[in-house]
Amino acid sequence: MEECVTDLREDALIARLTAGSHLSGDVRVGPGDDCAVIDFSTSDGSLLLLKTDCVIESVHFAPGSDPEKVGWKAMCRVISDIAAMGGTPKHALVTIAFDSKRKVSEVEGWYRGMRKATREFGDFSIVGGETASLPTQGAIISISMTGSVPANRYFTRSGAKAGDLIAVTGRLGGSFKSERHLTFRPRFFEASWLGSLPEDLRPTAMMDLSDGLSKDLPRLADLSGVPGFEIDFSKIPIHSDSDLKGAIGDGEDYELLMTLPQAAAVTLGKDWKKQFPDCELTVIGEMSDKQNRTPLEGGWEHF
Amino acid sequence: MEECVTDLREDALIARLTAGSHLSGDVRVGPGDDCAVIDFSTSDGSLLLLKTDCVIESVHFAPGSDPEKVGWKAMCRVISDIAAMGGTPKHALVTIAFDSKRKVSEVEGWYRGMRKATREFGDFSIVGGETASLPTQGAIISISMTGSVPANRYFTRSGAKAGDLIAVTGRLGGSFKSERHLTFRPRFFEASWLGSLPEDLRPTAMMDLSDGLSKDLPRLADLSGVPGFEIDFSKIPIHSDSDLKGAIGDGEDYELLMTLPQAAAVTLGKDWKKQFPDCELTVIGEMSDKQNRTPLEGGWEHF
Repeated sequence: MEECVTDLREDALIARLTAGSHLSGDVRVGPGDDCAVIDFSTSDGSLLLLKTDCVIESVHFAPGSDPEKVGWKAMCRVISDIAAMGGTPKHALVTIAFDSKRKVSEVEGWYRGMRKATREFGDFSIVGGETASLPTQGAIISISMTGSVPANRYFTRSGAKAGDLIAVTGRLGGSFKSERHLTFRPRFFEASWLGSLPEDLRPTAMMDLSDGLSKDLPRLADLSGVPGFEIDFSKIPIHSDSDLKGAIGDGEDYELLMTLPQAAAVTLGKDWKKQFPDCELTVIGEMSDKQNRTPLEGGWEHF
Repeated sequence: MEECVTDLREDALIARLTAGSHLSGDVRVGPGDDCAVIDFSTSDGSLLLLKTDCVIESVHFAPGSDPEKVGWKAMCRVISDIAAMGGTPKHALVTIAFDSKRKVSEVEGWYRGMRKATREFGDFSIVGGETASLPTQGAIISISMTGSVPANRYFTRSGAKAGDLIAVTGRLGGSFKSERHLTFRPRFFEASWLGSLPEDLRPTAMMDLSDGLSKDLPRLADLSGVPGFEIDFSKIPIHSDSDLKGAIGDGEDYELLMTLPQAAAVTLGKDWKKQFPDCELTVIGEMSDKQNRTPLEGGWEHF
């Protein structure tokens, strides 16, 4: 029988689709990281970040959700990816497709929420878009974004080294059960500050936690070529309305996951606390060169 | 009763959504043209073009269509917009959303078609993307693209002047009834050549014909602030499988619509014929400062 997309996991499907694709010489980072990084020959040497993402009704938001929050979420998901690279959002393109029964007020609400997010995180512009009709009931908001990042000061998923500490911002879990997945604030200011640190204090790798620690940490380890990691479950910062299982597997946290050089951790921790007294930065484990990874999927039930 | 999106025309909806939106200082051209034009402070002064567009199953392509052609169309629609500004496509971001019953081979076919288009028109890269599942049967391919254009050599919809001649490339009509809407070649090489001409020979305004002459010419006139235009129906180049009505109203032609300074037309026409012997460039009318526009919508039945 012919293979259906459900027979493949998303990562496997993407790997098949992007296999053998050619990247031009100006592409510093291609598919697989939070954003693509492009050398656009700017006069000040800054690099261009590119990212696209979408939210779909009944998948990423429930029908009847506050439209302004839906727009906020759609925009903030992409801001979160730009931030995770250490970048600043610059321009957004918005494609919306929806059934013909949709109320104008709902679509206007999406836009209000999107614009609110653009003002809060870098004050950037929506420079274009597309509206289209869906033949079935439903709605999709697809947003593409450019960002800017100083050359050689961007974060990737691939820089972690064995021995680096693993840290996360904020608290994890329960995002979708609560309203946090609609109201979260991407860690733009925190990530920009991290990017401004001297190189020996900066994270070696960083990404945003969108699919949950259980999926995202192995991706970071794989892309960094680090075989193992050890997580101390007692250290994981859990939201009061969630539990360990949720903190590991729920996803939609939009917190930063990063790896830190051991030598930097104490200084960084102190400076962080002064800079961001309301946002925890918690070391939860360590990257390792042993072929051993703390089981995160289907593993946490044992603890 | 609350207003539904079907109560508004697309242009009116977009006008409402983008009203009052703030554009940052680096935006040379914002929403409303084929692409946004951004001053990204490149060392050679070239500008960044940004565009997004999407194709939806049962709207832009029929279920069961050759997937490679669907991917080709999705990519070429955006290339056509970059070309209409005189630009060169540089990078694409691809978001695809589809139901879980979809065959992997179909999704792979879309990607083959998209990649083929990137190789033919500027040899650029797909640098990122997103795959998502739709809760209902269907598929959507949303593509964003960056492009590059030399400073002060880009075309807009807003530069036409009264007295300019109106010209189109190729032949119009019947695109959707035939397979042309899936197999068309965007006028990238033609538009690049036009962009390379001395300023007095270059079109004063240009756009691609995606919604048909009847919708697109009034948009160009409105944005240029030119009140009138006169079209000579006998001059409109019609595809052999279409008729005048189709050539005016069908849309999906992806030909270039441009306005030319009268003094340039003869020289330009001769040079064009040498450069592109297989693609007609036809003068079909004239922009005018009279408050009178040849009726194109619901008007062509009279002829």
